[in-house]
Amino acid sequence: MDFFFNNADDVVDDGLSGLARIAPVRISERASGMRLIVDRDFDGERVAVISGGGAGHEPAHAGFVGHGMLAAAVAGDLFTSPSVEAVLAAIREVTGPAGCLLVIKNYTGDRLNFGLAAERAAREGYAVRSVIVADDVSLPADVGARGLAGTVLVHKIAGHHAAAGADLDTVARVAQTTIDGLVSIGLSLSSATLPGDKREPRAPELGLGIHNEPGVSEVAPEDAGDAVRLALAPLIEAAEARHAADARWVVLINNLGGCSTQEMAVLTDEVLAQLPADRARAAVVPAPLMSSMNMHGFSITLLPIDDATHGALASPVAAIGWPGLFDVAAPTTFAPTASEGRAPGSGGREEARAQQLRAATDALSSSRAALDDLDAEAGDGDTGTAFNRGATSIRNALDDDRLSTGDPALLADEIGDLLARDMGGSSGVLLSILLTATAAALRDGEAFGAALGAGIGRMQDYGGAKPGDRTMLDALAPAAKALADGGSLGDAAQAARRGANATADMGHAGAGRAAYVRDEALAGVVDPGAEAVARLVEALADCSTGA
Amino acid sequence: MDFFFNNADDVVDDGLSGLARIAPVRISERASGMRLIVDRDFDGERVAVISGGGAGHEPAHAGFVGHGMLAAAVAGDLFTSPSVEAVLAAIREVTGPAGCLLVIKNYTGDRLNFGLAAERAAREGYAVRSVIVADDVSLPADVGARGLAGTVLVHKIAGHHAAAGADLDTVARVAQTTIDGLVSIGLSLSSATLPGDKREPRAPELGLGIHNEPGVSEVAPEDAGDAVRLALAPLIEAAEARHAADARWVVLINNLGGCSTQEMAVLTDEVLAQLPADRARAAVVPAPLMSSMNMHGFSITLLPIDDATHGALASPVAAIGWPGLFDVAAPTTFAPTASEGRAPGSGGREEARAQQLRAATDALSSSRAALDDLDAEAGDGDTGTAFNRGATSIRNALDDDRLSTGDPALLADEIGDLLARDMGGSSGVLLSILLTATAAALRDGEAFGAALGAGIGRMQDYGGAKPGDRTMLDALAPAAKALADGGSLGDAAQAARRGANATADMGHAGAGRAAYVRDEALAGVVDPGAEAVARLVEALADCSTGA
Repeated sequence: MDFFFNNADDVVDDGLSGLARIAPVRISERASGMRLIVDRDFDGERVAVISGGGAGHEPAHAGFVGHGMLAAAVAGDLFTSPSVEAVLAAIREVTGPAGCLLVIKNYTGDRLNFGLAAERAAREGYAVRSVIVADDVSLPADVGARGLAGTVLVHKIAGHHAAAGADLDTVARVAQTTIDGLVSIGLSLSSATLPGDKREPRAPELGLGIHNEPGVSEVAPEDAGDAVRLALAPLIEAAEARHAADARWVVLINNLGGCSTQEMAVLTDEVLAQLPADRARAAVVPAPLMSSMNMHGFSITLLPIDDATHGALASPVAAIGWPGLFDVAAPTTFAPTASEGRAPGSGGREEARAQQLRAATDALSSSRAALDDLDAEAGDGDTGTAFNRGATSIRNALDDDRLSTGDPALLADEIGDLLARDMGGSSGVLLSILLTATAAALRDGEAFGAALGAGIGRMQDYGGAKPGDRTMLDALAPAAKALADGGSLGDAAQAARRGANATADMGHAGAGRAAYVRDEALAGVVDPGAEAVARLVEALADCSTGA
Repeated sequence: MDFFFNNADDVVDDGLSGLARIAPVRISERASGMRLIVDRDFDGERVAVISGGGAGHEPAHAGFVGHGMLAAAVAGDLFTSPSVEAVLAAIREVTGPAGCLLVIKNYTGDRLNFGLAAERAAREGYAVRSVIVADDVSLPADVGARGLAGTVLVHKIAGHHAAAGADLDTVARVAQTTIDGLVSIGLSLSSATLPGDKREPRAPELGLGIHNEPGVSEVAPEDAGDAVRLALAPLIEAAEARHAADARWVVLINNLGGCSTQEMAVLTDEVLAQLPADRARAAVVPAPLMSSMNMHGFSITLLPIDDATHGALASPVAAIGWPGLFDVAAPTTFAPTASEGRAPGSGGREEARAQQLRAATDALSSSRAALDDLDAEAGDGDTGTAFNRGATSIRNALDDDRLSTGDPALLADEIGDLLARDMGGSSGVLLSILLTATAAALRDGEAFGAALGAGIGRMQDYGGAKPGDRTMLDALAPAAKALADGGSLGDAAQAARRGANATADMGHAGAGRAAYVRDEALAGVVDPGAEAVARLVEALADCSTGA
């Protein structure tokens, strides 16, 4: 299975069925052999703008049916013009006394089938006008330019005027004026794949059609910027020949089907950066508009835009395929506000707490190998190394007198910032969250045990682990509870130790890296993070009792 | 060049620059090393909804910045969480007294970096709340569901309430309620390609992540319907476990990046057809919402929708990436109106004209080989065969008394219909257009020569050729002019013959198949279509003079 299709013969009908489930349309019965897509809210009081052609260009044309754009679309098979009878049936389905305008892309099949349908519809008494879109600038003029994505702008502008109640002459005239201004060109890295078709890949080409017609020239762009330069050179030449020298443009950047959103964003940047300054006034947001199945390419269309055209393109529509018009501007940039340079150690000093900190960090540093060994059983063996990095950072700050040992809340903040910056890994950020939230609770007047409990809560919120998951929490939470219950640091150390030891019997890790390790590999092994916490609290307790 | 990118390291910044040219945003200076995307119209009076994460998921998250959705987004590198400092800078940039809500996808990096940024922002005095989106139903609950495309619905709903002036508690509560209802699952035919990364293709997988995390199971869907069945089974099971039995859903069908619009339409049809009847109330129109570079896959999200949720999802936004909400309905179908069964030959009879017709069709049939030979010089050698088909059809109709030989306008219509049906190719349709338009002009009271001239005009309009292009026109136009100028059929025949002969000296064909043939191959060769017309008019003239 190469594509998300069912039977190759059903691709068009299946897709139209999908459309009809979400778009404001009625569609012809599948058994009719025709594919008519009709605005279900169209009342025939206004001019009906009708378009269509071969399928495989979605959202064109079916996705543009809806109030403000097309009253009806007619689809053929993939890349094949619909029959005269189908076009005629579409005209009959929607055309009222105001008449209809056929918007035809410049391909022989479409011209002839829509043309004969128009003549027959006239014979039946309908007021019918036709316009032919030929926006491709890649072919010599006398061979006949093809109709490309610029057609969609004709749908939108003509549809806007029709919805506003303009008469058939006016709608046809506005459509023709639009067509006269349209210039388009395509560039693709690969051709379109029709279901079941296994054609050889082609070289990148410039000036290609939307039905795998060969491009006018093979190209070898080096990068996105180069590809855009290759496409813009003939396009701008054609535009300059046809448009006023100071004309501003609406730019349509069409995904031919196979470009990712990331590629379309980069192409948009290049197109708008490379166009002459201030000439691009508005853009139809980069999207597939006139695609060619999965063709990995893009086309660019330019159309002069004045206020009236802007209004016609910006008005809301009910059609689901129209992505909207957005005004173009040079990117507005700003300098992000950096974190305030708080002077580290701006609070008071307290030597006893400095000694506790030194003892605790020494204990962690001397545990480095033991903790790494524990971690090697279930992880990547770096827990000791990470805790040593954090401990070293704190010791260095103590040595440089950059810690406010006399202000517990400020100290917690300062250590939290150090750990986020220097310890690395998830543990550094988690401990930083713990300490920052603890500091906030201390400032709110909580006692240390309760504040630590609040910090642990935030650590759980963002870390996603809970007690019993074989993490630092299994030692931290009991220690905090012991303190909150009025216990001493010694009580907290005992609680942390019991909690750490208990992790050896926790079969399954519910969070952190060990979550993905088999239970058997964990049996009897103490979690290294919990062990580190236990050793830290033990060191604090030993120091405070003078042991 | 495999993709439309410039330097691999610049993909994210280039794309953001493209976005900033068309979206209502400000972005952080590239030199800042941060990627902040901020609603340029956000005034800080309302709650700021902020989201972000690794890049490569566009339009998420940058494309959802704008009034009614996100006040700011923060992007990291491709598939890499942004830094704590970047998230913090985004909070500072937009958060006013109303506070901010962080919408975080459930990945460890995002949780920790957004989490610590939230704690630090609180320390700076900002009112900050966070919610974590974990809508993936493919992983066991205790491992932790990932955040997938459902996140975008949280942006929209929370953004709607924030824009409407709800306070932070309310916005956070609505966001959490949304999250509690979200279920999503993805299925892909191939993994995402990061620039420069040449990984091996993987088998189709169900329950994959958006960063190339392996899927929960390899699958082998037979077609689009099968792929949707595989995805919907666990999704609906999860939805039924979590939602009310009669809950109606909004369905989000997310293009993971590499699906064509045609595939998305077929998938939409399958998803909406396979969901339990009437449960799908609305759909976010199928589009890339949370992509994974070019991953060729899709994800489906279900969320219970009541009128309030519908309103929140349907409200307009300024963000360019939001495709809109559309109501779901079974396709409405209709039977196209077939052409009226006009009784052929309903007009009068005139034997002289019948004899002319018979003489003309006989002349064309006996010219079959000569015309085919002429065509072989520059085309595919079937002009004589095609004209013979048309002639035979007309003769058969004469034999069956199905032609109104006594009513020139009706006769022209009847022959036009026969040629369109039986002659085939472009010529049949072109002659049908000619005759249908001629008939209309005759009914409008034009004399035959002038009416034929009008028909020729329509033929030119739709066929695209003009006199001098080596086509039928080069004989037809002079013949019509001779008649319009009051000449006899004999004069017309002489004019047609001169016109046909002149095509031998027309070096370059401007339309039709011969347009693509080298000039030298055409030198001295009469155009077979013009020759056919000349022989036809000659036969008519001979018959009318009794020759």
